[in-house]
Amino acid sequence: MATSDLPAPGSTERTRIRRLPEKAVTEREVAYAILDAALMAHVGVTVDGQPFVVPVACARRDDEVIFHGSSASRLFTSLAAGAPTCLTVTLLDGLVLARSLFESSMHYRSIMVLGVARVLTGDDEIDALLALSEHLMPGRTTEARHPTTKELKATITLALPLDEMSVKVGDGPPDDVPSDLVEPPYAGVWAGSVPIECTYGVPVADEQAASVPVPTYIEGWRWP
Amino acid sequence: MATSDLPAPGSTERTRIRRLPEKAVTEREVAYAILDAALMAHVGVTVDGQPFVVPVACARRDDEVIFHGSSASRLFTSLAAGAPTCLTVTLLDGLVLARSLFESSMHYRSIMVLGVARVLTGDDEIDALLALSEHLMPGRTTEARHPTTKELKATITLALPLDEMSVKVGDGPPDDVPSDLVEPPYAGVWAGSVPIECTYGVPVADEQAASVPVPTYIEGWRWP
Repeated sequence: MATSDLPAPGSTERTRIRRLPEKAVTEREVAYAILDAALMAHVGVTVDGQPFVVPVACARRDDEVIFHGSSASRLFTSLAAGAPTCLTVTLLDGLVLARSLFESSMHYRSIMVLGVARVLTGDDEIDALLALSEHLMPGRTTEARHPTTKELKATITLALPLDEMSVKVGDGPPDDVPSDLVEPPYAGVWAGSVPIECTYGVPVADEQAASVPVPTYIEGWRWP
Repeated sequence: MATSDLPAPGSTERTRIRRLPEKAVTEREVAYAILDAALMAHVGVTVDGQPFVVPVACARRDDEVIFHGSSASRLFTSLAAGAPTCLTVTLLDGLVLARSLFESSMHYRSIMVLGVARVLTGDDEIDALLALSEHLMPGRTTEARHPTTKELKATITLALPLDEMSVKVGDGPPDDVPSDLVEPPYAGVWAGSVPIECTYGVPVADEQAASVPVPTYIEGWRWP
């Protein structure tokens, strides 16, 4: 299905952004770029009326987001059985220091996807798991061992369609109350943003790999 | 209440860690240290059977975790009305590259708190909001404008008690399947971890603050 045939972010009643609508994004490409820059998401599932929020590794594959967990996990078996879910990715890019505490905020890119996940099986599951590994560790699938039948059995691999979602991006300067910009003492207070920068550090070999050269694909990794 | 009188992490049926129990932590001090190193959390709330997961800024105050949102938010009014919630913090510390994709994982510190949040009002709310600001932006409350009555009215400030929670820390080397450590070709594959390192970048002044010196308290910020 072509991207343009899919519903725009924020186009349903429950994904329409009411708070700070100037931060709402309706371009599907921005949503995909956020997912492509993310290593993890937080997934919500409700069991007996209690919401649970769990971190998962994630990757986009076409118009779906892939994540996986243990076949022994009650939360994952609930999701596999069709429990409605919410998958949220938040990339924190910085702190925004306004002249008031109330207007202070953060720079971020976030996406919230609502829906029901689809259980992947067979070659489709293997393809998704390799895509997930390649997203997190580009190049790694060329030399690490691929999953066995037993390992696949211990894994629930899910795909959540990117149909219903809301996307927000906050990247501007502080949005101060007009009076704070003209009246002392606040008009003279420093305001702006402090970026948050993440990178990969130096790889640490385990004992057995101590004398194995670090693979070149790892040396090429840059923070997404 | 002394910390030692409170229930240990993982001590209830729904917070007991079944998967990878070797990563489970029962020390309350570790839970507090994770919250103290976090700038944000993901909060779950269920509305009409649909879970929603939203990012929030957060801070620990004694034996509670503080977060806030808009009085106009349906999710926050649900939480304020006593909806059960789950607040999860995940600090991603690195990628763990095992010799198999299945055993590959991440270094992380995570905490999941279950419960019902308490609505803060009056001086208690102001104290909590200042604690939240000081946690995120140490020193800032000394010069930024504090909330007005109108701003407080637009804010729902919540405290979630740190009574029921589960804590997991993954920080070890890859835990490879024994056969992958001895049989070629996997026994010869590089394995280990790649750290993720976050820092604050150079502060960016807004237009009006272009000639105002960056406050010394900001210069002293280090990634928590």
